[in-house]
Amino acid sequence: MTRKAQRRPTLAVVGATGAVGTVMLALLTERADVWGEIRLVASPRSAGRTLSVRGEQVEVLALSADVFDGVDVAMFDVPDEVSAHWAPIAAARGAVVVDNSGAFRMHPQVPLVVPEVNPEAAAQRPLGIIANPNCTTMSMIVVLGALHRAYGLQAIVAASYQAASGAGQGGIDTLRSQMEKVAGSRDLGTRSGDIRGVVGDVEPFPAPLALNVVPWAGSLRDDGWSSEELKIRNESRKILGLHTLRVSATCVRVPVVTAHSVAVHATFAAEVDQAGAQEVLRGAPGVVLYDEPAVGEFPTPADVVGTDPTWVGRVRRSIDDRHSLDLFVCGDNLRKGAALNTAQIAELVAKDWSR
Amino acid sequence: MTRKAQRRPTLAVVGATGAVGTVMLALLTERADVWGEIRLVASPRSAGRTLSVRGEQVEVLALSADVFDGVDVAMFDVPDEVSAHWAPIAAARGAVVVDNSGAFRMHPQVPLVVPEVNPEAAAQRPLGIIANPNCTTMSMIVVLGALHRAYGLQAIVAASYQAASGAGQGGIDTLRSQMEKVAGSRDLGTRSGDIRGVVGDVEPFPAPLALNVVPWAGSLRDDGWSSEELKIRNESRKILGLHTLRVSATCVRVPVVTAHSVAVHATFAAEVDQAGAQEVLRGAPGVVLYDEPAVGEFPTPADVVGTDPTWVGRVRRSIDDRHSLDLFVCGDNLRKGAALNTAQIAELVAKDWSR
Repeated sequence: MTRKAQRRPTLAVVGATGAVGTVMLALLTERADVWGEIRLVASPRSAGRTLSVRGEQVEVLALSADVFDGVDVAMFDVPDEVSAHWAPIAAARGAVVVDNSGAFRMHPQVPLVVPEVNPEAAAQRPLGIIANPNCTTMSMIVVLGALHRAYGLQAIVAASYQAASGAGQGGIDTLRSQMEKVAGSRDLGTRSGDIRGVVGDVEPFPAPLALNVVPWAGSLRDDGWSSEELKIRNESRKILGLHTLRVSATCVRVPVVTAHSVAVHATFAAEVDQAGAQEVLRGAPGVVLYDEPAVGEFPTPADVVGTDPTWVGRVRRSIDDRHSLDLFVCGDNLRKGAALNTAQIAELVAKDWSR
Repeated sequence: MTRKAQRRPTLAVVGATGAVGTVMLALLTERADVWGEIRLVASPRSAGRTLSVRGEQVEVLALSADVFDGVDVAMFDVPDEVSAHWAPIAAARGAVVVDNSGAFRMHPQVPLVVPEVNPEAAAQRPLGIIANPNCTTMSMIVVLGALHRAYGLQAIVAASYQAASGAGQGGIDTLRSQMEKVAGSRDLGTRSGDIRGVVGDVEPFPAPLALNVVPWAGSLRDDGWSSEELKIRNESRKILGLHTLRVSATCVRVPVVTAHSVAVHATFAAEVDQAGAQEVLRGAPGVVLYDEPAVGEFPTPADVVGTDPTWVGRVRRSIDDRHSLDLFVCGDNLRKGAALNTAQIAELVAKDWSR
């Protein structure tokens, strides 16, 4: 490691102009600075723009193989197909890639890392690629990891309340446009189909989202499951290292701009109790226990958006099963759910340069 | 029964001017008419108003003991404490009371009836009172009853997406007022607490509902459970006659005007399969199977509001448990969830007069 210790590592942010990229630049400005040069990279049509990071104006470079020359760590916040093509190219030029797309998450030679849960996995990266989990998995995995260490997780039933921004800037724009169209209408939501008639275009969602909830996210897979539901199952198993974990998830989009919530029913090998579980969560890194319903304290998206931790409340032992807990988690899907976890993984990798 | 066969029964609608009462008058106008006289009853401050039912203008009478003289069936759509006081008085005057409040649902001598699930229970009413379930229980119980008859229900994990109108007209008014305040704001929902600062009064909810979800409904009970969550457990057990059914529910309010949804994970004694479960639900009375995600077909509140059946979609066998199904149900909380089921029970009772 002596070679690396001579300088601060160079970082590339690929997808710097997108919804997650924008949050990433804010995070890089706020967090303890471990980086030397920071290069901002985006599609050719965004190249030449100037963005602010660490208080400096930086020109956006067009994505190409050469842009990775001299880069030590490259964060990718781009669609799956862009990562699938460009991440191996960046790795071949010597960068450690931290990829926020779905392209490599389930690849057997790519670690899937949440620093509070399985930081050791980041060191084993034979392809030079580390994957960042899906934002819905992320909403609950830090809490589940802490409870697993205490009680031994065996099964999860999850129902999500996913924000529009999980579908990117297009999702936010569609929800805001629909909100303007339905606001002020006195009778809307009392007759079947009337919202559908008012909101117009529903894309990228498959149904109106304002004054509605939509039990669908992602694409259709076998036996009626959505890709998003399978991600929650498969990624949770991989991150926790539990290859027989039983997982059932139902993913539902709600008219919230940012912050995903999940109602979780979790079953453990050991008996659990409410006070013990609250104590475990109160001391868990990256978790805020917010659980005093007597005074109106439980996490809601409006309260947790823009914050870093995973918030958890409504912690209860199941009445009819001494081995199960019911709880409600809430986290910012653009921060911990995407940009923050990517930054944390990159900072783990950057320690190689400071040792 | 010959005495009763001479005439059509007289009906009283108590709480005729409320949110559920308004839907009830529409239902009484639409449905096959089994009633003789219909008396409309409300609090003294609403007495003297005229409301339309069956195409006729009817004057609202003030609630009193005498108003029940000659009444055969009395529907109560009023708060718990009003039912607790007045239902026994109406029963003492000879009326069969069908009560939509929570006052009598768990009383051992009061049947809790869903006509598609346990119609026989309505005949055993030693107090002259029959109870109508809570609207959230109702959203899923017709579907669960059909699946229970086929497979033998053992456990439920439920996460709700409850509409504002479940909290009455005040809930609707608050959501609409908040929607107007947040519409058009470009940045709202990106910083912690900013929605709370804009919407103002949140009552009757404990947190802002526009652009948010709130994991709370009802009042605080032991060990962190809400009254609404305990209702789902206790009422489901009573209606299905399953006194060892394991139930875990998390109740969450969403910014929808009308129609409750529930994500349900149900475990059965028998093995289940997707096609078989869909077949059971396709033939179940009071149920619409709407389950073709390949063409965007799954129930959403915007599509089912104002309709009578319980809609079900997203039917899947759990990947890791051959005895469990995951599904999404959606129903109008003011119709089947309240007024319609009350009307159906009253019509069951009215058959005593036509036999």
